[in-house]
Amino acid sequence: MRHSANYQSIENYAKIMSILTSKETDYAQWYNDLVLKGGLAENSAVRGCMVIKPYGFALWENMRDELDKRFKATGHQNAYFPIFIPKSFLSKEAAHVEGFAKECAVVTHYRLKNDPDGKGVIVDPEARLEEELIVRPTSETIIWNTYKNWIQSYRDLPLLINQWANVVRWEMRTRLFLRTAEFLWQEGHTAHATKEEAIEETEKMLDVYASFCEEYMALPVIKGVKTANERFAGAEETYCIEAMMQDGKALQAGTSHFLGQNFAKAFDVKFSDKGNKMEYVWATSWGVSTRLIGGLVMAHSDDSGLVLPPKIAPLHVVVVPIYNKDAAVKERIDAKAKELMKALQAQGIRVKYDDDDTARPGWKFAEYELKGVPVRVAIGARDLENNVAEVARRDTKEKTSYSLDGLSEALIKLLDDIQQNMYNKALNFRNEHFTEVNSWEEFETTLKTKGGFLSAHWDGTAETEEKIKELTKATIRCIPLNNKKEEGTCILTGKPSAQRVLFAQAY
Amino acid sequence: MRHSANYQSIENYAKIMSILTSKETDYAQWYNDLVLKGGLAENSAVRGCMVIKPYGFALWENMRDELDKRFKATGHQNAYFPIFIPKSFLSKEAAHVEGFAKECAVVTHYRLKNDPDGKGVIVDPEARLEEELIVRPTSETIIWNTYKNWIQSYRDLPLLINQWANVVRWEMRTRLFLRTAEFLWQEGHTAHATKEEAIEETEKMLDVYASFCEEYMALPVIKGVKTANERFAGAEETYCIEAMMQDGKALQAGTSHFLGQNFAKAFDVKFSDKGNKMEYVWATSWGVSTRLIGGLVMAHSDDSGLVLPPKIAPLHVVVVPIYNKDAAVKERIDAKAKELMKALQAQGIRVKYDDDDTARPGWKFAEYELKGVPVRVAIGARDLENNVAEVARRDTKEKTSYSLDGLSEALIKLLDDIQQNMYNKALNFRNEHFTEVNSWEEFETTLKTKGGFLSAHWDGTAETEEKIKELTKATIRCIPLNNKKEEGTCILTGKPSAQRVLFAQAY
Repeated sequence: MRHSANYQSIENYAKIMSILTSKETDYAQWYNDLVLKGGLAENSAVRGCMVIKPYGFALWENMRDELDKRFKATGHQNAYFPIFIPKSFLSKEAAHVEGFAKECAVVTHYRLKNDPDGKGVIVDPEARLEEELIVRPTSETIIWNTYKNWIQSYRDLPLLINQWANVVRWEMRTRLFLRTAEFLWQEGHTAHATKEEAIEETEKMLDVYASFCEEYMALPVIKGVKTANERFAGAEETYCIEAMMQDGKALQAGTSHFLGQNFAKAFDVKFSDKGNKMEYVWATSWGVSTRLIGGLVMAHSDDSGLVLPPKIAPLHVVVVPIYNKDAAVKERIDAKAKELMKALQAQGIRVKYDDDDTARPGWKFAEYELKGVPVRVAIGARDLENNVAEVARRDTKEKTSYSLDGLSEALIKLLDDIQQNMYNKALNFRNEHFTEVNSWEEFETTLKTKGGFLSAHWDGTAETEEKIKELTKATIRCIPLNNKKEEGTCILTGKPSAQRVLFAQAY
Repeated sequence: MRHSANYQSIENYAKIMSILTSKETDYAQWYNDLVLKGGLAENSAVRGCMVIKPYGFALWENMRDELDKRFKATGHQNAYFPIFIPKSFLSKEAAHVEGFAKECAVVTHYRLKNDPDGKGVIVDPEARLEEELIVRPTSETIIWNTYKNWIQSYRDLPLLINQWANVVRWEMRTRLFLRTAEFLWQEGHTAHATKEEAIEETEKMLDVYASFCEEYMALPVIKGVKTANERFAGAEETYCIEAMMQDGKALQAGTSHFLGQNFAKAFDVKFSDKGNKMEYVWATSWGVSTRLIGGLVMAHSDDSGLVLPPKIAPLHVVVVPIYNKDAAVKERIDAKAKELMKALQAQGIRVKYDDDDTARPGWKFAEYELKGVPVRVAIGARDLENNVAEVARRDTKEKTSYSLDGLSEALIKLLDDIQQNMYNKALNFRNEHFTEVNSWEEFETTLKTKGGFLSAHWDGTAETEEKIKELTKATIRCIPLNNKKEEGTCILTGKPSAQRVLFAQAY
């Protein structure tokens, strides 16, 4: 964690600190401030594209490594497919082209030349591509075109492949991490011999996402399936996990699609089964993206800055000496701090000793709070005399005096407590913002006063879903898995309904 | 390592094996066969873009992880910058635009629409970008445009950033890994307060690359600087490492550029030094790419397939049971194999037990030779009686009987031996293909009969360099660092020369 890369010089930083917006004043601005001032990301010179700064990228690296481990543990391998998709590929799957071929970056030429009329370069009109290339918005088409050559027999199945990649969707209104023209993600693309196996894979990967979010990001999620309206373009069924942000809006944290035989048919991918009969292959795809970083920030942070779950935090513990320029005291603190760091590092704890003498402790405290470092340890002269250290936990901001004896073990336990506490807190918040509503009035009032998930009856039609969205901006986030069957009447139309679905305003 | 993902069904595989080209018959075809049949990569539907298959991508992951560790150990952090570069940015640095703005993918539109005259989609002429975007061929311009906002004071320096990314250069003639339109790479971009510090960084990263190649890839390299002709567009000095392939051609394995203040001036990036004086920032950039996989293949492999240095091999050891359908024997072999696997895995060795009973041992042997697995262990009934196993090392193809007692330790030692032996072999080959030549006749003859590096006197002019290239296709690969000063006369022109330089035909 270099100062320089993250928030420039100290003077700048002080200026920045004084203009942090509070969550209550303006939630959207609070989020944007945090992302900028926490050193996570910023807008670039290219409209809609962000620069992910080192501290933000460290979060993504940790998420990627953990997810990658879980993908490999479930039998998947990584591969890499081209960033460009021939325009005609997008049209091969009827629903897919409607969803993805519209707002996208189109490569039409492959050469620039010097501008004969002046300085600079212009597009060479003679270097026009025969067929335009689309910068991938998602890779089903190019991948299934490839799988055609990889799959002949049942022995080639299942094919369990994942790709870590950048993708581009030309978004008109963008927000750092939450919606950007270019973003980073992983996309799994698997091929199976049977429908059952493909559905099992779709559900398995949803579980991988859910447990990753809950165990690693301290982010409780609701698992469900999307309505037809909200389905991935080209899918038979879209499974999703939905998380709740502190402003009562939902955030789709990951999706897993059962694609049926749609792409196999579009790209003519067949295999000979054990009885030598030719069958179309069954497919899934699933992905999570840098958007999850936005969810992480919005689910846990506060007005002092980021609050990071220990498992994902680039830095777990920071140790700050309090010594007032007394070199002898400093030396004794150094010795204790080094001992502590060594013990922590031996247990895999990421720890930093910040004895930079150009900044005061109070400034450092504010800095590490902004950055969301889970545990701060301060050691001063009097602490040494009393054989203690002051330990501040970021999640509750509680300060406690800890004995220096066995401090490393105590801190490791504290990190576990913080991880668990953050999850519990987010879960409580989610539960408090989950309301069963039984009338249109209740629906509207709850949405206005409290937000959150609204569990309500719906008549099952796309028209009603659209109408509710128009009236309230709330969409059906999902039909929860294992939803209890409960008959009722639609909150808007009064028509019969077989089960409740989850509504919310969403990112 | 799934069969399915890499070379489809067994029938196909047998067919493929019978058409492997030998290195001597046709080196280029041998290389291409190996990449395809070894399951490393293949061409895609997009001209010039490759699909990196799981086994090839596993090599890249291992290289990336090891390099990333070395970058972080030298104080660098990762970040991510946009894939698109506004066209005007390329023109800001005069030399850079000449080198990079020509053959590139140009995004001109951001939307498709349904074709009114038929089916499919067409580019929407109304969605033309005001300024075209270039898919990054390298990121100096977009990064230095960003650094302008990150750097104000000497306290913000040095700024040590690396990016793992895909880049696109519109190559007309492509070869898998060696030259593709899209490739994966890392690009380091650092900013410094002084010229000396920037040069030190440039040299430090060259050393990181060199030790990575030698220690990890078993690939000896020569460190040097490029002539002005071969310099990176926008650099003051380009350092490089050059490796020797088995056909006597050189391969540039990595470059590290001292950029002077060129990009700081182009993007107006200044900092106030300790005396509050405004100065332009000094820059470096450095990169290695998936091209290195091509070098790895060409440096070590043979007519039976890949030969992988243990450190980079996705699989270190494969254990194959020999049991002729006798279930009781199989059971005893299983027990021994599991014991061995456990002991190896505890030491971090990547091991697989291949007891697939649909394939014969001989077929498996050929398969793992093709894949370059460093060590193969075969255990049969008679081996068990004698308390031994047959161990085959891939590099020399030598087979030895090892005692089952202490086998895991012996195999770990063997892996070390193989790594060292592969390096020594490549180094000997390189040394044998390093010739001091002192006349034009000697130059031409050596190039024709033996190839390799030719250490020769050159008059220092770009004209002579060009002329030699025209006549022989040999280029100056580098002026080796710490070149001994030795006066002589240019092999072509007879003009005076202050030192020898290294010529070679190159990839």
